[in-house]
Amino acid sequence: MEIICVGNELLIGKTLNTNAQWLGKHATILGITVKRITVITDDINEIANAVRETLQRKPQFLITTGGLGPTFDDKTLEGIAKALNRKLKINQKALKMVKEKYEAYAKKNGVETITLTQPRIKMATIPEKTQPIPNPVGTAPGIQAHVKETTLIALPGVPSEMEAIFEETIVPLLKQASGGNTFYEKSIYADYIMESTLAPLIDKVMHDNPGVYIKSHPRGEENKPHMEIHLSVKAKDTENQKRSYKKQLRNSPIL
Amino acid sequence: MEIICVGNELLIGKTLNTNAQWLGKHATILGITVKRITVITDDINEIANAVRETLQRKPQFLITTGGLGPTFDDKTLEGIAKALNRKLKINQKALKMVKEKYEAYAKKNGVETITLTQPRIKMATIPEKTQPIPNPVGTAPGIQAHVKETTLIALPGVPSEMEAIFEETIVPLLKQASGGNTFYEKSIYADYIMESTLAPLIDKVMHDNPGVYIKSHPRGEENKPHMEIHLSVKAKDTENQKRSYKKQLRNSPIL
Repeated sequence: MEIICVGNELLIGKTLNTNAQWLGKHATILGITVKRITVITDDINEIANAVRETLQRKPQFLITTGGLGPTFDDKTLEGIAKALNRKLKINQKALKMVKEKYEAYAKKNGVETITLTQPRIKMATIPEKTQPIPNPVGTAPGIQAHVKETTLIALPGVPSEMEAIFEETIVPLLKQASGGNTFYEKSIYADYIMESTLAPLIDKVMHDNPGVYIKSHPRGEENKPHMEIHLSVKAKDTENQKRSYKKQLRNSPIL
Repeated sequence: MEIICVGNELLIGKTLNTNAQWLGKHATILGITVKRITVITDDINEIANAVRETLQRKPQFLITTGGLGPTFDDKTLEGIAKALNRKLKINQKALKMVKEKYEAYAKKNGVETITLTQPRIKMATIPEKTQPIPNPVGTAPGIQAHVKETTLIALPGVPSEMEAIFEETIVPLLKQASGGNTFYEKSIYADYIMESTLAPLIDKVMHDNPGVYIKSHPRGEENKPHMEIHLSVKAKDTENQKRSYKKQLRNSPIL
């Protein structure tokens, strides 16, 4: 899987990219490997280029976040349309989704009706041959398309909306694709030892246990060396992973 | 500028990418535009590909974070060497930096000497025709290279080390490159209004003020619509920015 996050706020450091972390964590737990995250600004050409480049690497899934809203600088769908060389068109299913949201909003707030203005219709204007995905907690639908080997999914940038669509519609897709793979991880900690001292031991354990991924994270070196050693495995079910992990622990010269 | 963050922990969602945000914010304040952030795993080919692709886009600066340490999976320098088609070689200046760090550590901890083992020498093994950059708070030096139009800088992934090198060595480079540009931003907030209602007004203000970037960030839509409207400008000095910003405010139909 690859992830593309669209939003100038991520590039200027205004917003911390919690969406990428959330998606990375949830995909990983489902046994899907995230190979790359790309962050770009709200520009049609930047989006189109990033989408095209990503599709050339043929990931099974490409998830984008951000840029699905009603404002002028929400350009993800235009960028995707350009990358896929498809026209943008009002999608009747998407329009129904958007309309229902505004009707519900009007009812709740005692307003008689809310006009489907151009910015609102924009959220239902999606590339041809793509499907809208319902947004359980917001207005802008997500979209889904099949492009050769890749399932392309566009999610909103508002975290609660991104997460809700992911959980409702994307999790089943990923589960099916991973074929029941899951992920198991464990951290151990070491004090008063430098990373360079541990390095040969970590290398040996990794070499002897190709299924186990080990990475050391130094947390402060100058004053008091403190190290997190993170072990992770991917396997078909949790029991296998734990077995692999336990075998690793037994054989470890570190422990 | 482009940023490449190397680290599997960022892709599996174990670690939130605060380095990218920190770099984005600091570069932006210095008047430098960050165009893309790419996150990849600790794999030589992935790193080499990402570096090559980035260099083809000819950014003035490419900053990488992560993968400079002593362990087997610290592969950034190997990846950069591969991308640049340069050999890795022990750099005597870098070796001196590493040696001094271990000597200081030995002295502080009452140890007579610390051997320069292979993992330690690895941190001074850098691509040919690159310069080591001193690390004021950690062991692994950064590196700097000129590759056609681009200044390539590799920084460690440990935030305190990345930040210290950036502040000591990179800030002067960026200041010179931006020619005194700075960045000014301000947020205003609107309650009980939907983004789609504001959209045409935001479009109008942006159109009338091409120097001002405006982006709306909906913060919860279903229950109580709450909107952050973020305005930012880049200009030669703070006075100009404020003038531009104030002019924008006066002309704004939103306010």
